[in-house]
Amino acid sequence: MATLRVPEEVPAPTRDSERLRKAFQEWGTVEEGVICVLGHRNANQRRKIRETYQQLYNESLIGRLHYELSGDFRNAVILWTMDPHKRDAKLANEALKKKKKSVHHLQVIVEIACASSPHHLMAVRQAYSSFFDCSLEEDIAYNVPLPLRKLLLGLVSSYRYDRELVDANAADSEAAVLHDAIKKKQLVQDSVVWILSTRNTFQLKATFECYKQKYGNPIDQDIKNCGTTDLESILIMVICCIDTPEKHFAEVIRKSVFGLGTDEDSLTRAIVTRAEIDMMKIRREYFNMYKTSLESAVIDDTSGDYKKFLVTLLVG
Amino acid sequence: MATLRVPEEVPAPTRDSERLRKAFQEWGTVEEGVICVLGHRNANQRRKIRETYQQLYNESLIGRLHYELSGDFRNAVILWTMDPHKRDAKLANEALKKKKKSVHHLQVIVEIACASSPHHLMAVRQAYSSFFDCSLEEDIAYNVPLPLRKLLLGLVSSYRYDRELVDANAADSEAAVLHDAIKKKQLVQDSVVWILSTRNTFQLKATFECYKQKYGNPIDQDIKNCGTTDLESILIMVICCIDTPEKHFAEVIRKSVFGLGTDEDSLTRAIVTRAEIDMMKIRREYFNMYKTSLESAVIDDTSGDYKKFLVTLLVG
Repeated sequence: MATLRVPEEVPAPTRDSERLRKAFQEWGTVEEGVICVLGHRNANQRRKIRETYQQLYNESLIGRLHYELSGDFRNAVILWTMDPHKRDAKLANEALKKKKKSVHHLQVIVEIACASSPHHLMAVRQAYSSFFDCSLEEDIAYNVPLPLRKLLLGLVSSYRYDRELVDANAADSEAAVLHDAIKKKQLVQDSVVWILSTRNTFQLKATFECYKQKYGNPIDQDIKNCGTTDLESILIMVICCIDTPEKHFAEVIRKSVFGLGTDEDSLTRAIVTRAEIDMMKIRREYFNMYKTSLESAVIDDTSGDYKKFLVTLLVG
Repeated sequence: MATLRVPEEVPAPTRDSERLRKAFQEWGTVEEGVICVLGHRNANQRRKIRETYQQLYNESLIGRLHYELSGDFRNAVILWTMDPHKRDAKLANEALKKKKKSVHHLQVIVEIACASSPHHLMAVRQAYSSFFDCSLEEDIAYNVPLPLRKLLLGLVSSYRYDRELVDANAADSEAAVLHDAIKKKQLVQDSVVWILSTRNTFQLKATFECYKQKYGNPIDQDIKNCGTTDLESILIMVICCIDTPEKHFAEVIRKSVFGLGTDEDSLTRAIVTRAEIDMMKIRREYFNMYKTSLESAVIDDTSGDYKKFLVTLLVG
């Protein structure tokens, strides 16, 4: 359900590297070359191109892209060219280094912890630790204020079982634990954090469904009724990222283009991180939710090479 | 500082596999063959032998060992022959499946979380998840009673930064946090769990040292004065495994052989899991603590092939 379109016969990494090198050297061809080559290669192919480019020309492809490009286009292309786990480690670190850590900044951490595979999350933690001289959870423990700290720490430390295995009794009893915590407005009590950070996503979907059946409202609705602080917002986001990640990312994109101005960082992040995962589902969800196409929203709100690049990732 | 002795010229895995196969087929040579070959190969070499044996004879080496050997010798040889992360996943699972989970059983989880490398812990979690249909932390969250649950969950979810980087100010302020929690007997308050499960081991050693300087007693002594429940025992073990793992394992071995009878499971675990890591340090520590040699303690308390195998791992 990715939207990335890779040609049927993928050129050898050497050929792609030569094409990029040529584009860098000839005036006015950089942007087109970059979009044509990198915009149509999957993560594994991009990694091979990076390695081959380095060997052939003894220079870093990402360094060269940084030098040749600029603005939002550069940012998008570089995030796309990086290894996905290194890219996410970088995004998480940028969020944690912000002076004021709003929900808006911290959402990338929720996405990595709740809308990625357990294996990916582990690779992000390894990359984080090797780049930033401390662990991801250390940076959360000492940079994020309570009560968000507790929730995010639990979530990023998780390594969920990754196959579909649901225990209906556990779903029932844990829906009751969640309901009790919401009723008492104790949203980050230990049991809530443990349920959300140790259970596999299939189990959690069953728990949320069970919650709705037993108590009438969807769980996110009941959390919304608890208050409007950052904690409720992040918790609703956690549930959405686990339950229907396509909906979360449709909302991120909507908010980034809606109204005056564009939030390019969020738009880039959502498209770059999901183009190879579930962008087709996100497009469908976007249309269902907003009765307009995601592509046209992006086309209307962006311009130039940045627009061309995002559209390439969106529609192939 | 391992005690494992590998020959200068290591035979090819094919040669080792043939030797094992021959030992299995000739009456009365199994035990000697197993000790001579497997007892002198490191984890990587044992993995290659397992793979080669499987290819050559279309049977699992571990399955065959299970069939050919028996008792404590079999248990020790099989744990030794397994991949270290799979072995530890198995040991953790056995501990969590016990009906009554005493400190004695849970200590293996503390050892994996606090006396292993962050990379090893991650590999154990991956192995656990692929063998046992749920994650290690899920089994802890739903099988270990409070308050141990909270502490162990934090510890096994950690992925500590693995290089030596110490922040003296953090050591000072976190020693104060720990002291305050101990004074109030709130040993598993969130801040304690976060410090013990997110900080790197070098940082924690500095914090414990700082604690001693500022408050007069070693931190484990002050914890001991809080009470004698499982929580204090496990917490003291956590601190020992982080600060001086060689001391922890010397104690495990001492307890397993001291007095009447032997606790073979603990003895095997300590020797098999540390022979390639820090057994030389453990031997020195044992001698310092008990004024007798670890080897002679093992020799006095064990017999037969089991003794021969442990001594091989202990002295090469």
